[in-house]
Amino acid sequence: MIIVMKNGLQEETIQKVVERLRENGYQIHQSRGVEKVLLGAVGGEKSDYLKSALETMDGVEKVISILAPYKLASREFKQENTIIKVGNLSLGGEQIQVMAGPCAVESREQLLEIAAIVQENGVRILRGGAYKPRTSPYAFQGLEEKGLQYLAEAREKTGLYIVTEVMDTRKVELVAEYADILQIGARNMQNFPLLMEVAKHNKPVLLKRGLSSTIEEWIMAAEYIMLHGNHQVMLCERGIRSFDSTYSRNVLDLSAVPILKKLTHLPVIVDPSHGTGKWHLVAPLARAGVAVGADGLIIEIHNHPEKAVCDGPQCLKPQNFRNLLQEIKQIATVMGRTI
Amino acid sequence: MIIVMKNGLQEETIQKVVERLRENGYQIHQSRGVEKVLLGAVGGEKSDYLKSALETMDGVEKVISILAPYKLASREFKQENTIIKVGNLSLGGEQIQVMAGPCAVESREQLLEIAAIVQENGVRILRGGAYKPRTSPYAFQGLEEKGLQYLAEAREKTGLYIVTEVMDTRKVELVAEYADILQIGARNMQNFPLLMEVAKHNKPVLLKRGLSSTIEEWIMAAEYIMLHGNHQVMLCERGIRSFDSTYSRNVLDLSAVPILKKLTHLPVIVDPSHGTGKWHLVAPLARAGVAVGADGLIIEIHNHPEKAVCDGPQCLKPQNFRNLLQEIKQIATVMGRTI
Amino acid sequence: MIIVMKNGLQEETIQKVVERLRENGYQIHQSRGVEKVLLGAVGGEKSDYLKSALETMDGVEKVISILAPYKLASREFKQENTIIKVGNLSLGGEQIQVMAGPCAVESREQLLEIAAIVQENGVRILRGGAYKPRTSPYAFQGLEEKGLQYLAEAREKTGLYIVTEVMDTRKVELVAEYADILQIGARNMQNFPLLMEVAKHNKPVLLKRGLSSTIEEWIMAAEYIMLHGNHQVMLCERGIRSFDSTYSRNVLDLSAVPILKKLTHLPVIVDPSHGTGKWHLVAPLARAGVAVGADGLIIEIHNHPEKAVCDGPQCLKPQNFRNLLQEIKQIATVMGRTI
Amino acid sequence: MIIVMKNGLQEETIQKVVERLRENGYQIHQSRGVEKVLLGAVGGEKSDYLKSALETMDGVEKVISILAPYKLASREFKQENTIIKVGNLSLGGEQIQVMAGPCAVESREQLLEIAAIVQENGVRILRGGAYKPRTSPYAFQGLEEKGLQYLAEAREKTGLYIVTEVMDTRKVELVAEYADILQIGARNMQNFPLLMEVAKHNKPVLLKRGLSSTIEEWIMAAEYIMLHGNHQVMLCERGIRSFDSTYSRNVLDLSAVPILKKLTHLPVIVDPSHGTGKWHLVAPLARAGVAVGADGLIIEIHNHPEKAVCDGPQCLKPQNFRNLLQEIKQIATVMGRTI
Repeated sequence: MIIVMKNGLQEETIQKVVERLRENGYQIHQSRGVEKVLLGAVGGEKSDYLKSALETMDGVEKVISILAPYKLASREFKQENTIIKVGNLSLGGEQIQVMAGPCAVESREQLLEIAAIVQENGVRILRGGAYKPRTSPYAFQGLEEKGLQYLAEAREKTGLYIVTEVMDTRKVELVAEYADILQIGARNMQNFPLLMEVAKHNKPVLLKRGLSSTIEEWIMAAEYIMLHGNHQVMLCERGIRSFDSTYSRNVLDLSAVPILKKLTHLPVIVDPSHGTGKWHLVAPLARAGVAVGADGLIIEIHNHPEKAVCDGPQCLKPQNFRNLLQEIKQIATVMGRTI
Repeated sequence: MIIVMKNGLQEETIQKVVERLRENGYQIHQSRGVEKVLLGAVGGEKSDYLKSALETMDGVEKVISILAPYKLASREFKQENTIIKVGNLSLGGEQIQVMAGPCAVESREQLLEIAAIVQENGVRILRGGAYKPRTSPYAFQGLEEKGLQYLAEAREKTGLYIVTEVMDTRKVELVAEYADILQIGARNMQNFPLLMEVAKHNKPVLLKRGLSSTIEEWIMAAEYIMLHGNHQVMLCERGIRSFDSTYSRNVLDLSAVPILKKLTHLPVIVDPSHGTGKWHLVAPLARAGVAVGADGLIIEIHNHPEKAVCDGPQCLKPQNFRNLLQEIKQIATVMGRTI
Repeated sequence: MIIVMKNGLQEETIQKVVERLRENGYQIHQSRGVEKVLLGAVGGEKSDYLKSALETMDGVEKVISILAPYKLASREFKQENTIIKVGNLSLGGEQIQVMAGPCAVESREQLLEIAAIVQENGVRILRGGAYKPRTSPYAFQGLEEKGLQYLAEAREKTGLYIVTEVMDTRKVELVAEYADILQIGARNMQNFPLLMEVAKHNKPVLLKRGLSSTIEEWIMAAEYIMLHGNHQVMLCERGIRSFDSTYSRNVLDLSAVPILKKLTHLPVIVDPSHGTGKWHLVAPLARAGVAVGADGLIIEIHNHPEKAVCDGPQCLKPQNFRNLLQEIKQIATVMGRTI
Repeated sequence: MIIVMKNGLQEETIQKVVERLRENGYQIHQSRGVEKVLLGAVGGEKSDYLKSALETMDGVEKVISILAPYKLASREFKQENTIIKVGNLSLGGEQIQVMAGPCAVESREQLLEIAAIVQENGVRILRGGAYKPRTSPYAFQGLEEKGLQYLAEAREKTGLYIVTEVMDTRKVELVAEYADILQIGARNMQNFPLLMEVAKHNKPVLLKRGLSSTIEEWIMAAEYIMLHGNHQVMLCERGIRSFDSTYSRNVLDLSAVPILKKLTHLPVIVDPSHGTGKWHLVAPLARAGVAVGADGLIIEIHNHPEKAVCDGPQCLKPQNFRNLLQEIKQIATVMGRTI
């Protein structure tokens, strides 16, 4: 921690800050310049509270944290990549995993048809929402438990694994009974009780980035889940909010992928469907996601996008999905990986 | 609803879209220009799903909604201002209400001391968090039910009303037993199960704007609460995220106040403490909040900011709070209001 | 300057960095923690280049600048407020100055009529663009020198001072012959040749904030003008770009006013017309601008907004302008100032 | 154009708007709903001014433009891709062009050494700034004409083509004498006099996206150059400003590439160096740029990044550049292109 103080302060004012740091076990090294005094503080207790308290003390201009605020998620804590097992699949290893399916589970027929398409294409994970976070209270809110049952039936029929969203602390137990991977949506990235609740279940978690969440806030959300007992966290980039949503609903921040791979040991997934909101942008951004180093992709597909009850405009049709898989397999090869 | 179609389409393609609209009860008026065909559709059923479905149809370039997606919250639905009663206080009327207190309830002593200061200054609502949403899992998370009990004791001793945050659907009933106003924090603005849960209790709700929520998304969150049975919603502007957080943690969007007063009938509150994150910016922005037309202010104060376990740097000391109240009373008078 | 280095480095790697700093005249104090080594460097030569060079050296994690990158504009360099003289007016003193007029000079008649309205209301500075930066090459680009002549005629007839924009280094001399205050528009805030050119003329400069410029970049733009010889710079907040422009074209960042008053000694002006883009938001935000501590306002008015060739929707009509002046005079009184 | 009007208006109010439209040659189709009246207006004169004027008329709620505001740059105007010739090279064709070199021309030796590296790697375009837009007036501002001469010498020695920035209308003629491609930097994207000046010279223009410019504003800047006579415009995505610049200086918006390829016929270039500001992010984002469909890349390299006078931290060393070229050649092959 570095404390920047004005120069020309009374010695006493500086000493009060030094004392406060020593009380917390810090060793202090002072650098006195013409305009500022720097206090380098090392070795003390990590404390969110101390930083805030120092900032309110007389003479203190700013306090700069040097250490990352997260630990369990950091590459320094665990150097090798975390590989998450879902049945016989590995997420975060050499093989890039694709998750595909409809935005929402709409009916038994719809889901089973799409699941069959997913399976035929050699993809191993089925996505589909039974509980849907919708901006409008008048919009379709999901089939709820019925939707979970259809997902389970699709799994039985196809052998696909299931990733599905949970939004309410009271439903985590129920959703965990059906799902192979629990999804935390962008709007819930900082729903801390929900993070702590999913931590209690021994299921991998797909943690989507918040709409305007910083990289550090996102890793801290993963840290919540890990600190409360569940280390199987995947980070999913799904586009951030920018000043221009005319042609793409969000801006897919692909730089997040190599940044996260450097800072953390967790698998990183890219969602080009929500990242753009337009089906014709999904394939180019999916290719870019593989080229930038993602460990997986999550893609919305639909057999009848014009009948989809949500996000139709961003769903790929089966033929386009098939073509996309061909393209990304070749790019994966360039990257020394498989799909 | 307006459907913009390319020109040079086969008549059949246009007719398919027209049919689809008619099936949903719409009347259609066509305007055929050199480059585009416009379909003006009026009178049909409101449907989130139809818009999305049309966007995926052949030949459709875009679909433009004309009507606001919210109803109960709109000024067109209810022309007069909503005035919310909290005991003998009115929120949204002539009197501007100040809510003040610490970021978090830290101890019985701390809370009672600050409550006394709040009361002595003629302020009538006490704020204080018992459940705290913290970016870091290592930071102080609140005293929980113990904190609620201290708030109740402070109310008993001072006659102040209590506003406090609820974060978890499972805790709404408990918090509602203690609080006079339920606060939904910025990170939970689109926690839809939570919005629906607070709607079940007959308590006013202070709904904070999400960090990068649009005006429309924010009103839609209020609409969730209203549609599920609770019309006592206040909207609280607390700063939005921008590209520069060096000197102010957020950008307090004061234009939101007159915009919301025009679009909705709900009271609008301004939070200059979270809006800036720096105590020395609180007074100028609080003055500006009153001048722009806010119905209330929510302000963090602390008797010992340097000991505060959270947000110390943005807390006003008692003397500064006293001075601020003097200033804003005078500006309220200019605005034809009282404090 | 603080250099953060990884621990566990070879002593030699650390010493290379220390040497480099000593070559530039720095004294170094080391703080060695368990995870990091901090080098506090004071007393050396200020150099943009050295920071960048250090960041590329082996073992260096990051380099943190402690001193502000600007000097002449800083409150530390000059403690008292800069008061800029325009004829017998003072900008930055007790009196808040209003600048009003049309977006663009459209014709002799239009300008003279509006100038008369401005003068009748006791306002002393007339705004109006002769060179207009327009997003579209098909839009009206200004009357150019003819517009400047009309402005000069309006000044002669009314005694008003003139503020008008200059966009091209080749036109600075010409515009400076006519204008009392040279305006640098938001899109040109980092047009460095233009900043250096206006620095050569002994005319006050109104420097608008760039659409997504940080506070520091903005002050650095002022520093350019000051370093090249012209210390008469006013900073004008005119709204920043956000993720939501549905109801307000920009977000007027009023927190910038007290932040700039603390960091610099320069006058700060607020532009609620461009800050919102809607005439009905101008009055509330103008009131808020005065309440937050601005030294001046720049406001677009028009006698026939529906005939304005640019920005009609954000122009106040004469009657609304008159009412606004009444309101802000009262708020100025509360602030201990006059208008 | 669509004009949305409130219902319940006097017929006269609606008729005034209709008249105004007819005066401008529009045909009107009305759709009268329960809550709104829609006027579909087709066939009239395109006019920026009319839209703005309509918005200020009584009863008008909003005016929605249907046609793109640009013409020459649009894919509808010219369906086939524009291929720009630079000597014997084609930009926008099957071959992806790489432009590489230092941020700034620092000295004759530095430039010639780096040019040799560029050439040895089979790259055909050399970048390097002789005029540098720097945030700080204290930073290195470029070697100016001397720098241009070194670039010309490097071209002579290596056969590389030269791309270099021009910032000042007064220097365009000079820079055009030396450069093969004129670069307009991000900060000057809306420096309209500069755009019109480069339009006068028969040189290809590399137009960088502004820091927070929308896709439409960017295309409109290209339209300025095209309308004033120069159709050889390339669009360069170089990262946009977001709320998080901790780990990447900007967010490289790769979705812009397929969006621009759809809306316009112009070549699109990606700049992963400025897009991230960190050398270790350049390779992954360069790969992603090729995979997303870019027609070219512009990359900063340096033989001694630790001695670079600007942007050292984002420069690739020669070996890393060589490796990157290998990777992107393979991805180009997958895309059916060459490098």
